[in-house]
Amino acid sequence: MGPWLSPEELEFVRRKVPMVYVDIVPVRTDESGQVESIGLLLEAQDDGISRALVTGRVLFHETVREAIVRHLEKDLGPVALPQLSPSIQPFTIAEYFPTPGSGKYDERQHAVSLCYIVPVMGECGPAADTLEVTWFTPGEVRTPELQAEMNESHAQILRQALGQMGEL
Amino acid sequence: MGPWLSPEELEFVRRKVPMVYVDIVPVRTDESGQVESIGLLLEAQDDGISRALVTGRVLFHETVREAIVRHLEKDLGPVALPQLSPSIQPFTIAEYFPTPGSGKYDERQHAVSLCYIVPVMGECGPAADTLEVTWFTPGEVRTPELQAEMNESHAQILRQALGQMGEL
Amino acid sequence: MGPWLSPEELEFVRRKVPMVYVDIVPVRTDESGQVESIGLLLEAQDDGISRALVTGRVLFHETVREAIVRHLEKDLGPVALPQLSPSIQPFTIAEYFPTPGSGKYDERQHAVSLCYIVPVMGECGPAADTLEVTWFTPGEVRTPELQAEMNESHAQILRQALGQMGEL
Amino acid sequence: MGPWLSPEELEFVRRKVPMVYVDIVPVRTDESGQVESIGLLLEAQDDGISRALVTGRVLFHETVREAIVRHLEKDLGPVALPQLSPSIQPFTIAEYFPTPGSGKYDERQHAVSLCYIVPVMGECGPAADTLEVTWFTPGEVRTPELQAEMNESHAQILRQALGQMGEL
Repeated sequence: MGPWLSPEELEFVRRKVPMVYVDIVPVRTDESGQVESIGLLLEAQDDGISRALVTGRVLFHETVREAIVRHLEKDLGPVALPQLSPSIQPFTIAEYFPTPGSGKYDERQHAVSLCYIVPVMGECGPAADTLEVTWFTPGEVRTPELQAEMNESHAQILRQALGQMGEL
Repeated sequence: MGPWLSPEELEFVRRKVPMVYVDIVPVRTDESGQVESIGLLLEAQDDGISRALVTGRVLFHETVREAIVRHLEKDLGPVALPQLSPSIQPFTIAEYFPTPGSGKYDERQHAVSLCYIVPVMGECGPAADTLEVTWFTPGEVRTPELQAEMNESHAQILRQALGQMGEL
Repeated sequence: MGPWLSPEELEFVRRKVPMVYVDIVPVRTDESGQVESIGLLLEAQDDGISRALVTGRVLFHETVREAIVRHLEKDLGPVALPQLSPSIQPFTIAEYFPTPGSGKYDERQHAVSLCYIVPVMGECGPAADTLEVTWFTPGEVRTPELQAEMNESHAQILRQALGQMGEL
Repeated sequence: MGPWLSPEELEFVRRKVPMVYVDIVPVRTDESGQVESIGLLLEAQDDGISRALVTGRVLFHETVREAIVRHLEKDLGPVALPQLSPSIQPFTIAEYFPTPGSGKYDERQHAVSLCYIVPVMGECGPAADTLEVTWFTPGEVRTPELQAEMNESHAQILRQALGQMGEL
């Protein structure tokens, strides 16, 4: 019995309990740890192109650290060299509900997402369903124009991450 | 379709995905916020009596704040007057696995638990399956003797909470 | 030798070492801890009227908790009933320098300020040099118009506090 | 007027205001960020040999990041390659007073210290007044025997750091 679910099982479970997710803000920092740029994914979706954080589910029997590393590798490639913090405390949590109007919205499920800022030191290239990984300065990320290219839930988490890094 | 699951559904889901939990350390503080005492539950279990944190599942469609309030009310009664922080950031997360030896252990499930310290200002009395709520000073909680009356997972979270409150 | 300094001593010390400050965001919350409103001071200054956080110096021999309580009492009055967290971890630090252009600016000094969000439960009234204490919803505080009524350093801390409370 | 003070000036200032310090716990982590070892300094002091955290003052006009890097370089050498977090939030603060019995003790001064856990990736060698840098596993650091080789203030901060890293 592995951690992967059939589509039917996943559909069933998603209507029964909240799902555990991680939302990750990849960053590049200078030698004193100050953020220099923030990586956003460019993704093709049914309704067009949008920018997104690295995000995904924590599997049965998987640790949160393993899930963070797996999703970063999935979206940034195998040599991104993420530097996870020795503390597993998320900088915030995000709660998604399948009901429009009640906070963050995810039509598929109720999800509780642990949010992390993760510096990466290696080469990043698009992988999986990602068209491109683009790095923006904090000043660029603060603009409403760039945030409008993301869904509102991810834009909120991104602003919270900017606050956590002293860049709001 | 409410948030409560039949025993069979719950058993099924628990073998498919990690469950979202909260672990709560109730405290009493003085007027400057310094912790004065920590509340532990005395519970009767199959293998005897033990002390425990307030803990429980986050239900489908329930916010984390609602779950914290519900579980505190369940274990401390309806007039405990919990003072939740305006920040929903947990002070740590705890990961329980159904496999002995890999971190925290919970034979029933894989659970990712959000851990909070919550001051309470009202009257606390045992409710539900709790025999007693007992308040201990930080000095008492630091003793190996008291910690030995808890399962090791809860004792670890409690030590982390003491660290967070500057009481280690 | 008390904690208060003569003007000459304070002037001397301020050119020698960074000063320890606290910046405090007073909030009112609902019974689940969710922020409902944020209190800003209306102050008369040489160049007009502006809104500000509760802020002030930590004195020699004074604990950070004592400083928080003292400054809240100074600006919100003696019956504000602040509920300090059992954790003394600030949600961020703010660094002020007497040189324009290098981050936050304070012409008087280099200051390292510990930033806290503190719920208050009692009656708040203006005291000392404060003209008024005004409570704003998170939505109001997010507007550039209101933030333009504060100095930029306090507006930055306020946005970080909104992020910490999930209100950005 | 540089940031360095004459001994007389420093002595004067130390009796007037709290001093800003940093206390740093250097760690080595595995590729998922989990702590593997913790670096402690071996120092010769008047009353014998003891183990210590990396610690020191924040200078006038110096940022906290600059102070962290400077003190790590002073104690671990120039190629330790510290990886500071993009967030400047300390995991706790430590308050030292020149009066025995009131919390952490420092006969020289009242100090407010910002505490950080900093992963290092390079070579570390003793420098300045340090005899040796020794790396211990979390299990070793947890023992009362090792903690007894430190002053009690640093041992407390170290236990809090272990808690923050999920290693208590």
